[in-house]
Amino acid sequence: MYSGGYAGRILRINLSNKTAKEEPLSEEMARDFIGGSGFGIKYLFDEVKPGTDPLGPDNKLIFAPGPFTGAGIPSASRMAVTGKSPLTGAVGMALSGGQFPAEMKFAGWDAIIIEGKADKPTYVAIKGKDVRFHNASHCWGTLTSDCQQIIKDELHDQNVRVCCIGPAGEHLSKIAGMINERRAVGRKGLGAVMGSKNLKAIAIRGTDPVDIASKEKYSTARTALLKAFKESPVLYSEFSQHGTPMVADLTGAMGVLPAKNWSETGEFVPVEGIGREAQATRKVGREHCHDCPVGCSQLKLAQTGEYAGILSEGPDFETVYSFGSGVGIDEIDPIVAADRLADELGLDSISAGVTISFAMELFERGILTLDETEGIDLRFGNDEAMIKVLRKIAYRDGLLGDLLADGSLAAAKKIGKGAEKYAMQIKGLELPGYDVRGLKGHGLGFATSYTGADHCRGYAFQEVFGVPVPWEVDRLAIENKGKLTIWNQDVRTATLDCAPMCAFLLDMAVPATACQNTASLMEAVTGLSFTPEEVLEAGERVNNLAKAFNVREGFTRADDTLPERLMTEPLKAGSSKGQVISRNDLDTMLDEYYSLRGWDVKTGTPTRAKLTALRLAYVADALGL
Amino acid sequence: MYSGGYAGRILRINLSNKTAKEEPLSEEMARDFIGGSGFGIKYLFDEVKPGTDPLGPDNKLIFAPGPFTGAGIPSASRMAVTGKSPLTGAVGMALSGGQFPAEMKFAGWDAIIIEGKADKPTYVAIKGKDVRFHNASHCWGTLTSDCQQIIKDELHDQNVRVCCIGPAGEHLSKIAGMINERRAVGRKGLGAVMGSKNLKAIAIRGTDPVDIASKEKYSTARTALLKAFKESPVLYSEFSQHGTPMVADLTGAMGVLPAKNWSETGEFVPVEGIGREAQATRKVGREHCHDCPVGCSQLKLAQTGEYAGILSEGPDFETVYSFGSGVGIDEIDPIVAADRLADELGLDSISAGVTISFAMELFERGILTLDETEGIDLRFGNDEAMIKVLRKIAYRDGLLGDLLADGSLAAAKKIGKGAEKYAMQIKGLELPGYDVRGLKGHGLGFATSYTGADHCRGYAFQEVFGVPVPWEVDRLAIENKGKLTIWNQDVRTATLDCAPMCAFLLDMAVPATACQNTASLMEAVTGLSFTPEEVLEAGERVNNLAKAFNVREGFTRADDTLPERLMTEPLKAGSSKGQVISRNDLDTMLDEYYSLRGWDVKTGTPTRAKLTALRLAYVADALGL
Repeated sequence: MYSGGYAGRILRINLSNKTAKEEPLSEEMARDFIGGSGFGIKYLFDEVKPGTDPLGPDNKLIFAPGPFTGAGIPSASRMAVTGKSPLTGAVGMALSGGQFPAEMKFAGWDAIIIEGKADKPTYVAIKGKDVRFHNASHCWGTLTSDCQQIIKDELHDQNVRVCCIGPAGEHLSKIAGMINERRAVGRKGLGAVMGSKNLKAIAIRGTDPVDIASKEKYSTARTALLKAFKESPVLYSEFSQHGTPMVADLTGAMGVLPAKNWSETGEFVPVEGIGREAQATRKVGREHCHDCPVGCSQLKLAQTGEYAGILSEGPDFETVYSFGSGVGIDEIDPIVAADRLADELGLDSISAGVTISFAMELFERGILTLDETEGIDLRFGNDEAMIKVLRKIAYRDGLLGDLLADGSLAAAKKIGKGAEKYAMQIKGLELPGYDVRGLKGHGLGFATSYTGADHCRGYAFQEVFGVPVPWEVDRLAIENKGKLTIWNQDVRTATLDCAPMCAFLLDMAVPATACQNTASLMEAVTGLSFTPEEVLEAGERVNNLAKAFNVREGFTRADDTLPERLMTEPLKAGSSKGQVISRNDLDTMLDEYYSLRGWDVKTGTPTRAKLTALRLAYVADALGL
Repeated sequence: MYSGGYAGRILRINLSNKTAKEEPLSEEMARDFIGGSGFGIKYLFDEVKPGTDPLGPDNKLIFAPGPFTGAGIPSASRMAVTGKSPLTGAVGMALSGGQFPAEMKFAGWDAIIIEGKADKPTYVAIKGKDVRFHNASHCWGTLTSDCQQIIKDELHDQNVRVCCIGPAGEHLSKIAGMINERRAVGRKGLGAVMGSKNLKAIAIRGTDPVDIASKEKYSTARTALLKAFKESPVLYSEFSQHGTPMVADLTGAMGVLPAKNWSETGEFVPVEGIGREAQATRKVGREHCHDCPVGCSQLKLAQTGEYAGILSEGPDFETVYSFGSGVGIDEIDPIVAADRLADELGLDSISAGVTISFAMELFERGILTLDETEGIDLRFGNDEAMIKVLRKIAYRDGLLGDLLADGSLAAAKKIGKGAEKYAMQIKGLELPGYDVRGLKGHGLGFATSYTGADHCRGYAFQEVFGVPVPWEVDRLAIENKGKLTIWNQDVRTATLDCAPMCAFLLDMAVPATACQNTASLMEAVTGLSFTPEEVLEAGERVNNLAKAFNVREGFTRADDTLPERLMTEPLKAGSSKGQVISRNDLDTMLDEYYSLRGWDVKTGTPTRAKLTALRLAYVADALGL
């Protein structure tokens, strides 16, 4: 039995009847799913029936930190939030850092399952085992920073940690997220799920420390990890100082920084205006997640014109793309402003930016008229228009706001006229800032990600940083990308999503030994002994289970695809000029991927044999395999 | 000697050489000046030499709570901030509530004197006796709510209380204030004084309770006060629920709610759009100052159009006037938005609104052209223009922003062309929301207030609420307004500014017994025995000392005046139609006032005899009397 790390308790909150119930965490669950997204996807598959309306009372939200969260392990103040995504209809899972995840553990919970629907706006205040349901009618409509402050004041506790939705979640925008402090649970529309439940916020406070199974092993494992941090050539020297935006310079140089809704990648490369150096001019501070020495999160202050005085945590690289190059903006201040506004409104900054860039391309192509944009001159590069539309999306304001509030794919379907060609999304989720035409592994990764086009699922650091782990990789090659993608997906799932720990751990600190690192920490913190292979298998298990959820919802091989543009329009300029992933390329990669996964190559479905080998025979039953 | 209430310690912080020094509080000081503005004005007169540049290093800022602050007395979580005003050149003193004042006492300080000038942006963090100077370069440029959060995060203490300036104070706007939490130290440009010292913020934290001299007397006095609160016909039933905006309905009905820069008072009465009921539709909560059961401060959330989602503490009545009727706006949401924006920028919402209404009148009269407003259609009622100009003022953005950043009088002087006629100010301070033409006592009160047109100095509650204390008052009469004004000024100064306690205490709770109430509390809390007459005399002493400061700066009877419009243009409509305060009326009132004050009627200067009687002979020496 585990003897540390885990609290051993799951909290189940039913909003319909205002009940809170404690359930034990079994060792089997801990062993097989570790925590984080593992717990979330397990509960999702087991408890959310096929065909459930993502915005109905039967959908659930599972907030799950992991065994290391709050245990003093650097980079582990993370949680996964899981539910059925209203944007994709597939598994919706998003990760967040900050202080909230650790506070969940201090309050004594390995996961909080939210189910049902409150009859009126509500927030839940959790203080250890004490759970209270508060009327939130007065908070309904508030921006996320104000909401957090109102709740802290009302609870007479400035140290309570609050995770809440903004107006976007209230208006059921399918690209709405949640915010805790200045950090987002951004993607897949989970903010709308919270809104559909009339749940404005969860406030949590705990005081009990997390137990450690073996102080001696803990000290050894933690020291080894900190040493790996220190030895990384980039972690403290670059990443702590510049955060994720340094990636804009890298991808810009590689010709894979998507621009103007992916129509001018390699041509429009505004790195001077929005890259590492430009960002540094706006930096006023750093923020550290709980017990993490890295502090990669940068506080930036806009300086010019009407944006002067706007502070944001970020923009992170993805936002530099979505509110910058992606919409044809080449200055930093509008990006900082849009980043803060998206956080205040509770909007996913990636999907919001990409949905706006989609509308901009339609506008420039005459598919959306000035009449349809309500007089907004929605051309690329118009930052004022971007800010206006951002607000409209959050409030579903006017026809345009309502049209875009459900993301680019839903909007394209409503618009018709061939608009779908310009919706840069996979399974409905807008693409992150890596043009896959010059990063083939990313193409396969995004296509097969169980959440859609997700930088946290489909990322291949080997292609961006050139790190030869577990082997040397040619970013432009099609060959062996199935094998690479599976390695990345399973290692990431186990070590980053389930543990959960921060992405840089894998990319920058322990690329070759991530599973060993997680295994050592598991033994030290929880007392459960794990081999690196068992860690990796947990990742594979979770990926199979997530895939099974999607299959049960009707997803097939045909959904594991890329936007048409990326398969038909080669890059026109830059270091990746001429590159494209043809339909044939993608199929080649998919065949390899499914085959190595042990899945049915034709349908892209996990087989009974594979599921059984992963101790998931009941899943095979559920799928009727 | 005092044995409770007072901490007995004054903190002197010199920013030039980064020193902090403790000084004792003498019993004489406590007896003669009580605290709050009494302490502030005493230090100001004694230490800030005549002719000192208000924005130079020799000006000082004195933050002073009072003997009851933090001692569990309702309505006493107040502080006075005093310095030489850059807007008026006279005494600048502004009061604020919230939690900061009580925290000052818990930290063990009866006053904090800030002197000198830091060589670079700085914030001072005070934890009890520990004073530290922090680099604030990274906070420079932040909005006030973000600044407070950054500092709390940096000090790893979410319970620290922060008083800071926004961009307006940094840009030395002479109508800049300070913000602590959501409360303002609003008026007289003291935010610019802080900015001129490169002081972005003061953060304070204490843990020691305030001593009580006599627990028994304390219990009796406190119970009596709470009983008076309860017995008030308006305090809990109206004021707690609606806050100060209920005054808009009252003054609207009386025809004295100033409109369109005082050009349409009585004609434009937008009470339906901005009064008590309209405000109630936006109310989402109340805020309580430390240990105060009243909670008059209303949290409001704008609901419509581009203002949706903007939360503000307020707008208070004065802001309903300055960003509403005063600028010809008849809807609540733009007022809520402007109120929040003014707080974030660190601008005095009264002076900012009145300065904008002044510019609007000039624009409508063709004195400011569209070219000079930089294309902004600055007509009355244009809320979008108001919001734009508000930002311009805070940043001195463009010619218009720079022109208006020093308030209406300075702008009028720069503009020429008879613009000064439309600057609704006294001694440079913009008028609060009581049209004195229908409230003669207010006319004399504002004219003689040592801070200029100040609702906290010139207010006569008898004229607004019809309370017959200390005698029945006819708001339209000129007679006996000298006597009334002196009573109001001295009682208010002693009980509200020095104690300091909240204005409603006098208006609504203990109108007839305010001095008795303060005397009882003084004895109970501090152990110093006071008669009501001694309390009143302290008020008189402070008013004489403040006046002496102004006289030493060159102010004469000619400065105790009203804007020309109010003496020449009778009200054209409403319940006060035809009313005006003629030059002759004002002189009659001034003669009575000076005479009853025991001052020289010709010059409006305190006499040696009066000063000596008030134990201020050294002041007579300083003035060369």
